Amino acid sequence: MSSAQDRASAIRNGDRRALARGITLVESTRPDHRDEALALLEAVMPHTGKAIRVGISGAPGVGKSTFIEALGTQLIDAGHQIAVLAVDPTSARAGGSILGDKTRMEALGRSANAFIRPSPSGGGLGGVARRSREALLLCEGAGFDVVIVETVGVGQAEIAVRDMVDMFVLLVAPAAGDDLQGIKRGIVEIADLLVVNKADGELAEIAMRTRADYQNALDLLRSTSPHWRAQVLAASALERSGIDEVWQAVQDHRATMETAGDLAKLRSQQALAWMWSEVTETLAARLRASPAIAARLPEIERAVAEGRESPTAAATELLSLFLAET
Amino acid sequence: MSSAQDRASAIRNGDRRALARGITLVESTRPDHRDEALALLEAVMPHTGKAIRVGISGAPGVGKSTFIEALGTQLIDAGHQIAVLAVDPTSARAGGSILGDKTRMEALGRSANAFIRPSPSGGGLGGVARRSREALLLCEGAGFDVVIVETVGVGQAEIAVRDMVDMFVLLVAPAAGDDLQGIKRGIVEIADLLVVNKADGELAEIAMRTRADYQNALDLLRSTSPHWRAQVLAASALERSGIDEVWQAVQDHRATMETAGDLAKLRSQQALAWMWSEVTETLAARLRASPAIAARLPEIERAVAEGRESPTAAATELLSLFLAET
Repeated sequence: MSSAQDRASAIRNGDRRALARGITLVESTRPDHRDEALALLEAVMPHTGKAIRVGISGAPGVGKSTFIEALGTQLIDAGHQIAVLAVDPTSARAGGSILGDKTRMEALGRSANAFIRPSPSGGGLGGVARRSREALLLCEGAGFDVVIVETVGVGQAEIAVRDMVDMFVLLVAPAAGDDLQGIKRGIVEIADLLVVNKADGELAEIAMRTRADYQNALDLLRSTSPHWRAQVLAASALERSGIDEVWQAVQDHRATMETAGDLAKLRSQQALAWMWSEVTETLAARLRASPAIAARLPEIERAVAEGRESPTAAATELLSLFLAET
Repeated sequence: MSSAQDRASAIRNGDRRALARGITLVESTRPDHRDEALALLEAVMPHTGKAIRVGISGAPGVGKSTFIEALGTQLIDAGHQIAVLAVDPTSARAGGSILGDKTRMEALGRSANAFIRPSPSGGGLGGVARRSREALLLCEGAGFDVVIVETVGVGQAEIAVRDMVDMFVLLVAPAAGDDLQGIKRGIVEIADLLVVNKADGELAEIAMRTRADYQNALDLLRSTSPHWRAQVLAASALERSGIDEVWQAVQDHRATMETAGDLAKLRSQQALAWMWSEVTETLAARLRASPAIAARLPEIERAVAEGRESPTAAATELLSLFLAET
């Protein structure tokens, strides 16, 4: 078995199989693997933080993989190295969801300068988000200078992804005057950039109207962030038009955040929030796993849900059961 | 010292001073007071849950107290009993913030059928939110059939309030085409009802345009909730116009939620979420208070914020220090 330092060196030297094995290690829930994963992360830490971290979300059918393929190949042609990680906590399929599937991103999947990793499966949102954050660090350690984190835009995963990336991009379909199909309330509001995809052929005109509608709505509903105002662009992943503008907006956002000192602040906040959520989630998981609590919990939850017991009293009981045991 | 049952009876019998003392008790952080507060809450629990719980938010200057005064006095004339609780975690002033101040709601403050309580101060958002939730239960136990929870719309408190009420109402000022002044991103998105206040005099026309703009923006940006679509109304608290329509919308929302079974579901979810946040916040507070951790925490947080240590490794260290101690 290789040491954490050896593993980290292999990853840094561009060994893709070492990277893939490293991600498999951080995805494992076995306690001995967890210790190894922590050692690997510590060895990689000094070489992380340099990538542009971009979240890309959008409902199924909006053309997400075509878009990432178009953006990714263009960036590779310009000399970048791209990692694509998927986050999909709804995926129960062993081996991960179809998100981030290489077969959907053919050109990108073939490139030596791209790395595509499907969503880890199981463990709920907390588990999936943690493993994706750690995979993101390993990809940075491997020298990828753009890391794309892909989600489906239908749930809480987007909030978790927003908390691990520098910029959040939402793809929408041309549909003037309509509700955002399939996109959960709240997702639009966290986007730094909206891209109306499929701005081609018959949809080109509707896409332009959609773009203007969104820009008006965002201008109205949003208070200006101190240094960045959400933009709306139109693009066609199919015809590869508008991709340059999207990348330019990503770079503008990066430059703005760096000049204002916001990027360093954002990443510090994200790291501290991640640490505290690790702490509280682990404590809550231990509490749930305690035999005394496992025996009482169904009745306590029922009493609270039915309004027979106050949440505070129930919490007090759970805490004293837990602390008596540890 | 009276027993929890005596206190609960006095509160149920409409003794306002007993209610005020009960809220002071749940606001206290003294451990012996905490035990008494829990006993009081348990005694009151069977008589809670019957009020319409409404959150009302809006930036300073939007006319919040005038609006609550107009709505409240109208409801009292119609035979209701109104409690107004304020939640303002930014208030450091002893005795609570100016929110919920009786002097700003004169007529309501004089009525025997109204109860106004300023925001508890100190303890951060978690503490303020917990005490407000418990105060809400005591008000219900005292027979108030409408409980209004007031916030300033400038931060995270609104999310906490949304999680304790049935319906969230946001007041905005007439300002067509402009950004929402002083309202944080994300607050508009949690509102079940938007009210454009100050729809009077010179602003009447702008208010109507603002109303239409918001309705368009909400229709575009939001996916429909299964049984309720956010409405936008215009009102003048000053001229007392449009208040009936607001109350009608609150009743429509209530009827819709009850018919669909959503109200019972929402309240069960809120109670369980409250219980778990009590559990995790208490554990995190104990962890922070542990001497071994207090000694290490500044250095750990610095290392994580500066990217020298991974959040996972830091969390692992904190957890082992904590669990070795308990």
